[in-house]
Amino acid sequence: MADARPVGGMGEMYRPLVEIWRGDTLESVHAGAVVVADDTGTLLLTHGDPRVVTYLRSAAKPAQVLPLLASGAAERFGFTDAEIAVMTGSHGGEPFHVAAVRSILGRIGLGPEALLCGAHPPYHKPTAKALRESGEAPGALHNNCSGKHAGMLALATTLGAPTATYLEERHPVQTRIRDAVAALAGVRPETLRTATDGCSAPTFALPMAAAASLYARLMAPEALPRDLRPATARAIAAMRAHPEMVAGTGRLCTAFMQSGSSGLVAKIGAEGFYGFGYARDGRGYGVALKIGDGEGERSRTAAAIATLASLGILSEAQAAALFDAHVGPIRNHRGLLVGRVVPVLDLRTPTWSRA
Amino acid sequence: MADARPVGGMGEMYRPLVEIWRGDTLESVHAGAVVVADDTGTLLLTHGDPRVVTYLRSAAKPAQVLPLLASGAAERFGFTDAEIAVMTGSHGGEPFHVAAVRSILGRIGLGPEALLCGAHPPYHKPTAKALRESGEAPGALHNNCSGKHAGMLALATTLGAPTATYLEERHPVQTRIRDAVAALAGVRPETLRTATDGCSAPTFALPMAAAASLYARLMAPEALPRDLRPATARAIAAMRAHPEMVAGTGRLCTAFMQSGSSGLVAKIGAEGFYGFGYARDGRGYGVALKIGDGEGERSRTAAAIATLASLGILSEAQAAALFDAHVGPIRNHRGLLVGRVVPVLDLRTPTWSRA
Repeated sequence: MADARPVGGMGEMYRPLVEIWRGDTLESVHAGAVVVADDTGTLLLTHGDPRVVTYLRSAAKPAQVLPLLASGAAERFGFTDAEIAVMTGSHGGEPFHVAAVRSILGRIGLGPEALLCGAHPPYHKPTAKALRESGEAPGALHNNCSGKHAGMLALATTLGAPTATYLEERHPVQTRIRDAVAALAGVRPETLRTATDGCSAPTFALPMAAAASLYARLMAPEALPRDLRPATARAIAAMRAHPEMVAGTGRLCTAFMQSGSSGLVAKIGAEGFYGFGYARDGRGYGVALKIGDGEGERSRTAAAIATLASLGILSEAQAAALFDAHVGPIRNHRGLLVGRVVPVLDLRTPTWSRA
Repeated sequence: MADARPVGGMGEMYRPLVEIWRGDTLESVHAGAVVVADDTGTLLLTHGDPRVVTYLRSAAKPAQVLPLLASGAAERFGFTDAEIAVMTGSHGGEPFHVAAVRSILGRIGLGPEALLCGAHPPYHKPTAKALRESGEAPGALHNNCSGKHAGMLALATTLGAPTATYLEERHPVQTRIRDAVAALAGVRPETLRTATDGCSAPTFALPMAAAASLYARLMAPEALPRDLRPATARAIAAMRAHPEMVAGTGRLCTAFMQSGSSGLVAKIGAEGFYGFGYARDGRGYGVALKIGDGEGERSRTAAAIATLASLGILSEAQAAALFDAHVGPIRNHRGLLVGRVVPVLDLRTPTWSRA
């Protein structure tokens, strides 16, 4: 896979994906790439260049939980589907999220101080406001990644590996995760480029085509190595059963999984990434979406809704309702309608087709 | 001037301007355009296409104040340089900003209820926090545009025009402002495209080349119609004398004007715009900068510092200090250094040269 770099080739690598209009004039434009692949790694549709390499960030979480589930830890510790779902999530730090993460830690006999994800205020604004007004500082449990970290600690415990160093790249927890991500993406583990995520765990960069294939294979466990099959089925079932644990109240991933068809799973990652998996006629399909500039909920949200609508995962009415709730028109400080966000998605059959 | 639209021509219109790296892999890229022109409207340097049309948003404020100053209102009401500077600013809502706007309104016999800019929390975070903790709701005075609006009300009062309708496009305040913006930009007033700004005032779209020319002419009043010359000189002198009124504590426009050479004036606009004016050897020069995606302080800030450094307005040491204070490395929730923001500015001599 070419290590294509969008610099100097912005026109081909990332294509305009969402326009921002004010009055009758285009004011800003977000470029990006969208890739749809099936569970064999065959590319089906692309917008922009499927070779562009980017980090999945938190969109790797559904794959990052697999070694834990494959280890038998879920049975050993009696993790519930809700607890597994929060391990795959970027949760809002709401009380039920924090309770689920506390419960995971309780089952493995560790406290919140074992979490090395750092702290930030809860994504869920009413929860953040209540916390602020209570005078309590945000803690690691509120970090959107605390479920993933609790899962990593559970895997370390199951493996009899040290829990203090679970974030190191050569720790057995991280090497198993890397191998699982590579298996789902269809790349060799040693070719995976990594860096440090916002939560201090290793994060993985993949070509967009491989990222889409990873999501497709999440939806078709039979395409995976035998040891990952039941784990993958359980992770996806947990996300589908508890979409509120994957994100939270009022959040887009949760809304997508509550309203989308074809067994949709949806997971954001930082810097404008979105991963989707769905199944049709017994086949798994995956979508990787990247806003090239890495910023702006408005553009990723609009592009994601347009992508799922164009694939028939959302009906026109569902897409319109989600757009209204999560994007809406652009209003100014007095509430006047001054502009609009316009997806300009153009999914085309790729000129080459193997991821 | 062609009404070029960046869609489908992303590669030429907006070029990569700021890269976001995580570890050893490029994660995101902000494309944009930068144009440098002189006070004759001649293009000197460009990055991206100087024909791209975009809104100046708040970067038009130094031009929007000119009809007020040309009307003699400053002498009539005894406006100070600090008060004129806050009329040109997107202020932080700090107590000294609010006091200046109150003073302007007091001089013309109006109260804050006359301001139709709407309300938002102060940009200055400690002020916003103090306001929140006091239980007081943000008001129109805290709106970053309240100085501009107070100036518009002063012009309406001077003209004997109604103050209740000062934001309507055909109100004498707005037609005079439109004519001044057009004169500075070197375009016919009837060709100016307008829309409604965040503060409900009309806002103006210009080709980047014309926007750069506008800033150049701000720095060379003798190139302007006679009625605007003293007004322009006074506006620029006020901004230079009171950079804290143009933005505020810890803000980039203020820091640029405090450290830049060549009489630098600097003014941001929403959606990734930045305008700069400077003077050398008796000539005025202007810079228009637009981040194409319209978002992200990180990219505009990095691109602005790189632009001013490459023009010699900031020394290397000044640029490095400003980059360190306003951009810095990318750190995660535990403070680990995980990435960096890299300007990739490439200012070239344009292939055509008249704005």
